[in-house]
Amino acid sequence: MHLNVMTQCSPSPQFEGLWRHPDDGTATGYRSLDYWIPIARKLEAACIDALFFADVHGLYDVYQGSWRAALRHGVQVPSVDPVLVVAALAAITRRLGFAVTYSTTYHAPYECARLFSSLDHLTRGRIGWNIVTSYLRSAAENGLGEYLSHDARYDRADEYVGVCRALWESSWEQDAVVRDAASDTFTDAGRVHEIEHRGRWFHVQGPHQCEPSPQRTPVLYQAGASRRGTTFAARHAELVFVTLPDPATGATHVRALRQRAEELGRDPKRIKILQAAFVLTDRTSAELRAKIARFGALTSAEGELAKLCGWLGFDVAAYPQDMPLAQIPLEASQSIRDFMRRFDPQRAWTVGDVRSISLFSRSPHRRTGWLLGTPAQIADQMQEFRARSGVDGFNLIPCPPTSGIDDICALIVPELQRRGLFRREYEPEGETLRERYFGRGNTRYA
Amino acid sequence: MHLNVMTQCSPSPQFEGLWRHPDDGTATGYRSLDYWIPIARKLEAACIDALFFADVHGLYDVYQGSWRAALRHGVQVPSVDPVLVVAALAAITRRLGFAVTYSTTYHAPYECARLFSSLDHLTRGRIGWNIVTSYLRSAAENGLGEYLSHDARYDRADEYVGVCRALWESSWEQDAVVRDAASDTFTDAGRVHEIEHRGRWFHVQGPHQCEPSPQRTPVLYQAGASRRGTTFAARHAELVFVTLPDPATGATHVRALRQRAEELGRDPKRIKILQAAFVLTDRTSAELRAKIARFGALTSAEGELAKLCGWLGFDVAAYPQDMPLAQIPLEASQSIRDFMRRFDPQRAWTVGDVRSISLFSRSPHRRTGWLLGTPAQIADQMQEFRARSGVDGFNLIPCPPTSGIDDICALIVPELQRRGLFRREYEPEGETLRERYFGRGNTRYA
Repeated sequence: MHLNVMTQCSPSPQFEGLWRHPDDGTATGYRSLDYWIPIARKLEAACIDALFFADVHGLYDVYQGSWRAALRHGVQVPSVDPVLVVAALAAITRRLGFAVTYSTTYHAPYECARLFSSLDHLTRGRIGWNIVTSYLRSAAENGLGEYLSHDARYDRADEYVGVCRALWESSWEQDAVVRDAASDTFTDAGRVHEIEHRGRWFHVQGPHQCEPSPQRTPVLYQAGASRRGTTFAARHAELVFVTLPDPATGATHVRALRQRAEELGRDPKRIKILQAAFVLTDRTSAELRAKIARFGALTSAEGELAKLCGWLGFDVAAYPQDMPLAQIPLEASQSIRDFMRRFDPQRAWTVGDVRSISLFSRSPHRRTGWLLGTPAQIADQMQEFRARSGVDGFNLIPCPPTSGIDDICALIVPELQRRGLFRREYEPEGETLRERYFGRGNTRYA
Repeated sequence: MHLNVMTQCSPSPQFEGLWRHPDDGTATGYRSLDYWIPIARKLEAACIDALFFADVHGLYDVYQGSWRAALRHGVQVPSVDPVLVVAALAAITRRLGFAVTYSTTYHAPYECARLFSSLDHLTRGRIGWNIVTSYLRSAAENGLGEYLSHDARYDRADEYVGVCRALWESSWEQDAVVRDAASDTFTDAGRVHEIEHRGRWFHVQGPHQCEPSPQRTPVLYQAGASRRGTTFAARHAELVFVTLPDPATGATHVRALRQRAEELGRDPKRIKILQAAFVLTDRTSAELRAKIARFGALTSAEGELAKLCGWLGFDVAAYPQDMPLAQIPLEASQSIRDFMRRFDPQRAWTVGDVRSISLFSRSPHRRTGWLLGTPAQIADQMQEFRARSGVDGFNLIPCPPTSGIDDICALIVPELQRRGLFRREYEPEGETLRERYFGRGNTRYA
């Protein structure tokens, strides 16, 4: 079983309001290495595959047509650049993998290729790239890139990833760097090539500025769920994050994704699929109930709403609260209708229902997307979900963000280890992140 | 006296060919944290102000109209991204400052502002930005930015730095982040402002995505030597790197720079000037002579030539070797004529003379740009240069790159300390890099 742990360099990632708990630490720690270093060490001691950093550029400004609510509640703002935190954590770990979100909007592909080659060298092959195409409108307003339609940005991202892969894989031959003192030759220039890319979106001549790193191409992660996004994932990704509502639907999606990859000429076994899951646990059911009550009371409903409206591009504050969603023109409400349908496909939801929902109050009893229970119950849930859906593991979102990591390392992992479901030590050889997913010797992208 | 040490994340920075020395370590170490971590620890133990990373994007491709010679000799290629190395070294140091080169060509200013705010948070206020406007033609060929004329790129850089400073200084009020659990308020959104920048080159709405960091604006370094570059430095920079040929010329330049800053409305005392100097030393003159011979033999003349041609934009391979530089049209040879004039303003230099010169063979007896001698002799040279030119310190370029750092820390610094010219410990308070240069309490840009 593969286990990633997900976080973000901002206050109380994923759980708006929980920064208020005195033990949380993210309110000031999100920007401090004194916060991040012990976390990386714990995850490494627990043999977690990789620590995965989400990221976003710009502010959520849909709710009430303003970024004020997002700022007030610390909804993914303020933040710091996770790429730098990964580099810092590379200095104090030897085996833990890292995956970091990096948008195809905000930097030129030549830069992106150099960044990930550098990270792969500095981590000795422990880096993954979560490819996102996100075009928040605020990105355009901050001079970061043109606003494109959904499909156009995937077309552009296809070309972008192609440029990066050419720089990583085709520019320097494996034996180009000779370091031969006698002939005064560092690199055999005849074994280094320009890529001469002339595409619709990018012109990149090359050669790449970095020598081949342990993995060359970082492990490619992707989470697109749309039809176009799934094709993108099937074409490029090695790790796909999914948020499957239940194992049966999951099994269908997992099969479709692997089949699409095969149609595109890839080995379907070279795609691993991780189910995203919020994790909340404690030693006993009584302790867990108390914890849920404690954290539920700290959840910021308005913060969750600002985040939800930003994700879905729907401003619940723009309509009367008793208005049924069905009365709002479909082009404005499609995303929110799809979202609410997951809770109850039959019910006639109103705008006010959206407002009253917050992640923490709705989910523990709904269970969608949650691993909730004692460690043994959670291990059962994981085992069952994996068996029925065919996913390869989980992308765990610790709740609350800080002590939830302790719970994963001290309670969940040992329970999985007792059942023989999770490693007790990292493989002594095969040090790269890719080998962790695809087996020893599979260092390179395939 | 202020002392920075300069390096670069590539084989044998600044000294082409010295990667061949068995003790050097940069040939593989340039991309490894196992190489960089002990260096940072040594510099911190010696109380050096800051470790400064040069950087370049693209390859030197002027000599022979190709990047082949640069690749063959490892001339600043391959490389890794120094921003990541700085982040990693932040994790294992507490007081050492860092300055890193970051070009105004390759990233949007909104991104740049986020990067340096993040670094300033993660280092707790120990970061400086060496602003470069470099437009290598290969940058344009790699899709990194339009090729602009020299003055136009400084105009653009003025606006770029202005945008960054607005994001750092004007977007978030000092008390905007309140972290008030009782009122469920992380940030008082009324104290966060958009910057609404609409300029010739950039449109950036804001607000900034990061809360105020210890220094807000990183310490601004700059090294422009042209008339336009000097105005840019006088307008923005707090630390200016110079390469003065002698103390008398130096004194004139230092006075002019401070005067220009005053004309632009700045306090001339808020600019510190550091002379760049190659450092080569040993305990005794006999040991030093042996060292010079040893390293001189390892210098790669063709590598130095590839670098020199790249810097000056003049291809010595394109002309007959016996052709006097004076017979080459001035527009093609101005830069190389200026360069050779530094060695002898009277001599009728030929193309072949340029070819025969390499940094290592010419400089030890010429002395321009070098600190060369026993530790006591070098301390004398520094003391005299500083007194006569009015510079505030030195940007030391260790020769060779690795053991030269040991020489600085173990031989030069103790000699300066014995003479009372250099600190024996970092100030216990005033932890930011800016305070190190401008005194306790001067945390913010002024």
